[in-house]
Amino acid sequence: MYWQEEARCGSDSTGWARAGWLHTRHGSVPTPTFMPVGTVGTVKGITTDALRSTGAGIILGNTYHLMLRPTAERVHRLGGLHRMMDWPGPILTDSGGFQVMSLGPLRQMDEDGVTFRSHIDGSKHRLTAESSTDIQFKLDATITMAFDECPALPATKETLETSMERSMRWAARSREAFKARPGYGQFGIVQGGTEEDLRKRSVKALRNIGFEGYAIGGLAVGEGQELMFSTLDFTIPELPADQPRYLMGVGTPDDLLGAVMRGCDMFDCVMPSRAGRTARAYTERGTMNMRNARFADDTRPISPDDDSPLAGRYSRAYIHHLFRANEMLGPMLLTWHNLAYYQRLMRQIRSAIIDGTLPALAQKLRADWSKGDWTEEEFPKPQFTL
Amino acid sequence: MYWQEEARCGSDSTGWARAGWLHTRHGSVPTPTFMPVGTVGTVKGITTDALRSTGAGIILGNTYHLMLRPTAERVHRLGGLHRMMDWPGPILTDSGGFQVMSLGPLRQMDEDGVTFRSHIDGSKHRLTAESSTDIQFKLDATITMAFDECPALPATKETLETSMERSMRWAARSREAFKARPGYGQFGIVQGGTEEDLRKRSVKALRNIGFEGYAIGGLAVGEGQELMFSTLDFTIPELPADQPRYLMGVGTPDDLLGAVMRGCDMFDCVMPSRAGRTARAYTERGTMNMRNARFADDTRPISPDDDSPLAGRYSRAYIHHLFRANEMLGPMLLTWHNLAYYQRLMRQIRSAIIDGTLPALAQKLRADWSKGDWTEEEFPKPQFTL
Ligand SMILES: [Zn+2]
Ligand SMILES: [Zn+2]
Repeated sequence: MYWQEEARCGSDSTGWARAGWLHTRHGSVPTPTFMPVGTVGTVKGITTDALRSTGAGIILGNTYHLMLRPTAERVHRLGGLHRMMDWPGPILTDSGGFQVMSLGPLRQMDEDGVTFRSHIDGSKHRLTAESSTDIQFKLDATITMAFDECPALPATKETLETSMERSMRWAARSREAFKARPGYGQFGIVQGGTEEDLRKRSVKALRNIGFEGYAIGGLAVGEGQELMFSTLDFTIPELPADQPRYLMGVGTPDDLLGAVMRGCDMFDCVMPSRAGRTARAYTERGTMNMRNARFADDTRPISPDDDSPLAGRYSRAYIHHLFRANEMLGPMLLTWHNLAYYQRLMRQIRSAIIDGTLPALAQKLRADWSKGDWTEEEFPKPQFTL
Repeated sequence: MYWQEEARCGSDSTGWARAGWLHTRHGSVPTPTFMPVGTVGTVKGITTDALRSTGAGIILGNTYHLMLRPTAERVHRLGGLHRMMDWPGPILTDSGGFQVMSLGPLRQMDEDGVTFRSHIDGSKHRLTAESSTDIQFKLDATITMAFDECPALPATKETLETSMERSMRWAARSREAFKARPGYGQFGIVQGGTEEDLRKRSVKALRNIGFEGYAIGGLAVGEGQELMFSTLDFTIPELPADQPRYLMGVGTPDDLLGAVMRGCDMFDCVMPSRAGRTARAYTERGTMNMRNARFADDTRPISPDDDSPLAGRYSRAYIHHLFRANEMLGPMLLTWHNLAYYQRLMRQIRSAIIDGTLPALAQKLRADWSKGDWTEEEFPKPQFTL
C-alpha cells in the first residue's frame, strides 16, 4: 500500500493541501477522501451499491463491534469483511482502542492492554496491541490501525504524556504483530492531546517505528475547531510528506475543508449517516431538518447541486412525509443523500487543489454554508399539473 | 387501459390459467402479476430502483393511509403518487373500504358511506363512493378501485347478502364518480363471501355497470385456502374472459399458483415485504427464519436459484448477522430478496402458461416447497481462504 501525490497547493494559506492517490490491494482511492463508517459490517441504512454510487472509495469498520458480533473468526470464515459485506474496495479498521476506552466502568486498563465487558451481553473480552492487530488481520482490513489509548479530555499534561508514551509502546508492539502483505498497510496514531511537544515526540516515535501512513488521534473529542486546527498546524509538518495522513473522527464539512487545507488526506465520521437517520440533511447551504413543517409542500429536491443518482427524484415534501410516517425509506434516502454530499464536497475540494483554486473554493463554500436554504428565486419550486 | 391475452392453458386442471398484458397509461405489465404493497407512498424498506430490479411491474397504494398522510390534496400538489415516490409504472390504489372496515369501533357505517377516526391522531374523516373515487383521482391512480364494504367473517348469509347489495350500489356510484381517461381504468369488486349465488349476483351487477377489470374481494380473510379456491372455481367463469381479474390480498406462493390456475391475473399481499422485515426468507424450498442459529456460519446465499441483482452477493451468515445486530440493512436486503422471489415465481408461472407446461411446473413447485432447505450436497457451502 502506498500513497502518491498528484498535486499540492502553493499559496500560503493552503500550502499543505494536497491531492493524491492511495493505492491498495483493493483498489486505488483519490485523496483527500471521506470514509463512511460501516461499524458492524454495514454502513447503516445503505447498500454497498448505493454507497459506490456516491463515489465513496474506502470505508471504515469497527474492530470493537466486529470482534463481539459476528466475531473476527466468523468474519474470517466468511471470507473477510470485503466478501462478507460485498464491498470489494479498501476497508480501514480502527484498533478498537478508542471505543473500548469509552466503555468507562466496563473496562480496566493495564500496561499490556484492556479488559472489558461487552455492551451486548456483558461477556468478558481483552484487547492488546497483538490481539487487536490479529483481529484486524482476520477481518482482512486493507489498512490496520495501531492499538492506542485515547485519554478522556480535558486531561492534565502529565496524564496526556503517560498515555501518549504507552500508546507509542503499543504502536511498536502493533507494528511487530502486523503481517505485511502487498497492497495492505498499517497506520500509526499520533497522540498527545493539544500539547505541541507531546505531539512532536509522538510523531518522532512513530516515524522511528515506521508505518505506511499516520493518523492523528485524540482530536474531535470536544476541544473545539480552533484547538483542533492549531494542533494540526504544529503536527502535520512533522509527518512524512510522501505518506497519507488520516484525521480520525472528523467531521463537519467545515472541519474537513480546514483539515484538508492543513494537509490531511483521510477522514471518517458517523455524522452524515447518523444525520440521515435523524432527518438532518447536509447541503451546500448548511443543514436542514427535514421534519420541519415548512417542507411539507416543498416540491423542490433537497439541493439543486446534487449530482448523485438521487438527484431530482425526490421532493423535500416526500422526504418530509417519509420521516413523519416513520417509513424506513426516509433514513435510507437521506443517508444516501448525505453521504453523496460529503463525497461531492471532497471531489470539489480535490479538483480545486489540482486547479490551484482552493482558496477561492474555500471562501465560496464557507459563504454558502452560512447563507441558509436557497430562496425560491434562487431555486424555484416546480409546479405540477395533473 | 385494457388487458390482452397472450396464451391460455388448455388442459383440464389448468384450463383457466392465462398469460397476458395489462396496457396502461404508465406502461404495460405482463400478467399474471404480483403487486408489492406501497402503503403510504413507499414499499417499506426498498427503493423504487431495487423494486424495478425485481421485475415488479405494478404496485399498490392504500387510499386510507394516503388520505390521512400526506393527504390526497398534497399528493396531488406533488404531482401524483408516481411523481411523488418516483415510480413511473402503473399504480393500483385500493378504495380504503377494507382498511376502514377493520378500524372496528373507530368507524360508523351508513348507507351513504363510512365515518371514521384516524388511527394517527383521532381526527374525524368520511369516505363514500364519491370521495374514495375522487381521492384516487387526486392520487393519480392508474387503476382505481370501486368503494366497497367488506363484512367481517364468519357472517350469516343474510349479513353477506345485505352487505354485497350495498357494495353493488356503491360500485355503481363509484363508476359514476370515475373520470375516464385514456390508459386509466377502474375495477369493480365482487363480494358475497363464499356463497355461490351471492357471488354470481355480484358479478352480474358489476358487469351491468361495466368496469375495465374485476377484483375478487372478501377472500383471504381467514376462510382457508380450500374455501378460497372453491369460491374462485364458481366465480371466475362468470367474469368476462377479456378483462383482467384481481384477487385481493393474496397470498402465499402456493395461493398464487392455485389462483393463477383458476384464472386470476393480479395479486397483492404484504406477506413478502413484511416477512423481509421479520427475518423470514421466501425461497424455492419454502421459508426460512434467518435469525435461526444454524445460519450463523452458513456461507451459502439464501437460494441457488436467485437471479436477482442480489444473487450470490450476500451469505446467509451475513443476513443472519445483520438481523442479530438489528441493522437496517437486514430488512432492506431480505425485503428485496423476498420481492425478487415473488416476481421470479410469477415469471416462471407465466412462462409455463405460454409453454403449456404449467401442470408440470405446479407439481415441481409444490414438491420443492415441501422439501425444506437444500442439503449441502444439493447446494454446497462455499469455502473461503484468506
Ligand atoms: Zn465524527
Ligand atoms: Zn395478504
